[in-house]
Amino acid sequence: MSPSLEIAVIGATGTVGETLVQLLEEREFPVSTLHLLASIESAGASVPFRGKNLRVRDVAEFDFARVRLAFFAAGEAVIRSFASRALQAGCSVIDLSGALEQGVALVAGANDSALAQLQAPFALISPSPSAVALASVLAPLREVLTPERICVTACLSVSSRGREGVNELARQTAELLNARPLEPRFFDRQVAFNILAQPDAVDEEGHAQLERRLARELKEVLASPGLDVAATCVLAPVFFGDSLSVCIQSAKDVDLGAVNAALEEADALECVELGDYPTAVGDAVGQDVIYVGRVRKGLEDPRQLNLWIASDNVRKGAALNAIQSGELLIKHYL
Amino acid sequence: MSPSLEIAVIGATGTVGETLVQLLEEREFPVSTLHLLASIESAGASVPFRGKNLRVRDVAEFDFARVRLAFFAAGEAVIRSFASRALQAGCSVIDLSGALEQGVALVAGANDSALAQLQAPFALISPSPSAVALASVLAPLREVLTPERICVTACLSVSSRGREGVNELARQTAELLNARPLEPRFFDRQVAFNILAQPDAVDEEGHAQLERRLARELKEVLASPGLDVAATCVLAPVFFGDSLSVCIQSAKDVDLGAVNAALEEADALECVELGDYPTAVGDAVGQDVIYVGRVRKGLEDPRQLNLWIASDNVRKGAALNAIQSGELLIKHYL
Repeated sequence: MSPSLEIAVIGATGTVGETLVQLLEEREFPVSTLHLLASIESAGASVPFRGKNLRVRDVAEFDFARVRLAFFAAGEAVIRSFASRALQAGCSVIDLSGALEQGVALVAGANDSALAQLQAPFALISPSPSAVALASVLAPLREVLTPERICVTACLSVSSRGREGVNELARQTAELLNARPLEPRFFDRQVAFNILAQPDAVDEEGHAQLERRLARELKEVLASPGLDVAATCVLAPVFFGDSLSVCIQSAKDVDLGAVNAALEEADALECVELGDYPTAVGDAVGQDVIYVGRVRKGLEDPRQLNLWIASDNVRKGAALNAIQSGELLIKHYL
Repeated sequence: MSPSLEIAVIGATGTVGETLVQLLEEREFPVSTLHLLASIESAGASVPFRGKNLRVRDVAEFDFARVRLAFFAAGEAVIRSFASRALQAGCSVIDLSGALEQGVALVAGANDSALAQLQAPFALISPSPSAVALASVLAPLREVLTPERICVTACLSVSSRGREGVNELARQTAELLNARPLEPRFFDRQVAFNILAQPDAVDEEGHAQLERRLARELKEVLASPGLDVAATCVLAPVFFGDSLSVCIQSAKDVDLGAVNAALEEADALECVELGDYPTAVGDAVGQDVIYVGRVRKGLEDPRQLNLWIASDNVRKGAALNAIQSGELLIKHYL
């Protein structure tokens, strides 16, 4: 049994941060003292943990030498300001924003062995929820597929933009159902009953940051630098749960029996049989596993594999993967 | 000026049928007498046309020898029962169900020349709305791209399942917003705030009928039998307007300037510049043009082109393409 550690959660008031705290309790993570932190704007709130309400304090005032492990579930600005301070104080960091420089992307169960090449304090990144879902599905297929090209369209739920995204979809939907004029606030246009083709800002080549992040993290986790990833991320009028349409081009003919067997064996996955299919809301939300369905070969190309993934972006895609990464660290290295 | 013809619309009470009748009036289609028909269940309803309410009559009682052109906007069963009767009576048929055997798929502006090989009575198919949208975007690119493989994820609106689909999304959304227990009726599960990964029944290989139809029609319209089409069609909680995420693999490097120029020149398209993007609800719905945006090369592969399409599935994707096909027939052949 691992010794208990002092641990910090930064961004504890967000949707992912709250789920992190909840999972620390649910999974009996070996916490001796939990420090909840946030930027000064959110300091003062309280979050329940083990029957008590813990006060959220200003991260800028925190002495990271007190903790061995810190989960950063805040925005990119916070990780940029405080991650290096934490690492310098000897505190390992698990970043969920993707902004941690020189951090190693880890999807628990997919590339655990990457940890063996590192040493404390560890600088880890829990990849974007879509990358976690996709890597979790592709990792067990390594033995039976040789992916050369992956084309993914990720229909992200509005919770990928935090609580404000969730509130905005609810508000817009209510306005429209009540036939009131719609005034978009948090999103720049109508997201209710609509699909927004861009999750965040795009660069001069037209790629969204999140699309670049998904491709980069997927290649890193799968240790496949030559993999060609075509990613389109869009925002769908769904509160929680991401849905991914995936087309994989393999170097050789796909053995569908072997693919299904490998997917069914994977602990992190739940396979839905042909004819039926998983959905974000009906299956994935609130679950610790990722759902896979519509597994089929190409209409004509025997080297093509198509499938559909549904995953809880907040719980499994973000908070749980970070916690599982922390569990691996504690078990083997901290 | 073409002479006016007696024309029939079968399935006149559906969402597509009503739009067909509306467009016949709007576009001053040369109709002398309009016969509105439907299966016996819908007969007796009335639909406005040129200031009058026309009675919808039972298609089984109709003498197709009276008309020169019939639009079939009803279900597959109706086209199977009555299209051959119409053709035998010398009436040209434009089928929107895709079930017309030996019909030629026509996307106005994309493969008009296919008509020259036929003779009256014409048996035409207006392809599925996704195929119309995709073919309209790919046809102008024929000169500047050599597509070998196309991967498309089509997020279809519930109106692709007719009025019942629209009503069910509205009903489910209202139930959920009012915190009432959800009982799915028309769809077999929650479609509100969710994405259904399958638009209709799948075959033993896992492909939905609509996915096969999309691939088949696209290859036919583009006269590219060797094109590899990977299609995933899903139902999104959107009332009207389809959104397509498209990844095209070309045989040679993509010239983005030439692609953008070709798209901008196409009459049927409206291009949205980089940084901005089109949406189904905000741009496409109610419009006669198809919106294209997020035009970008692959993250790494210079032979890859990614783009996003938003199109009104009922108006442009179905009714208008059928009407435009009819206009072509009348202008040149009938």
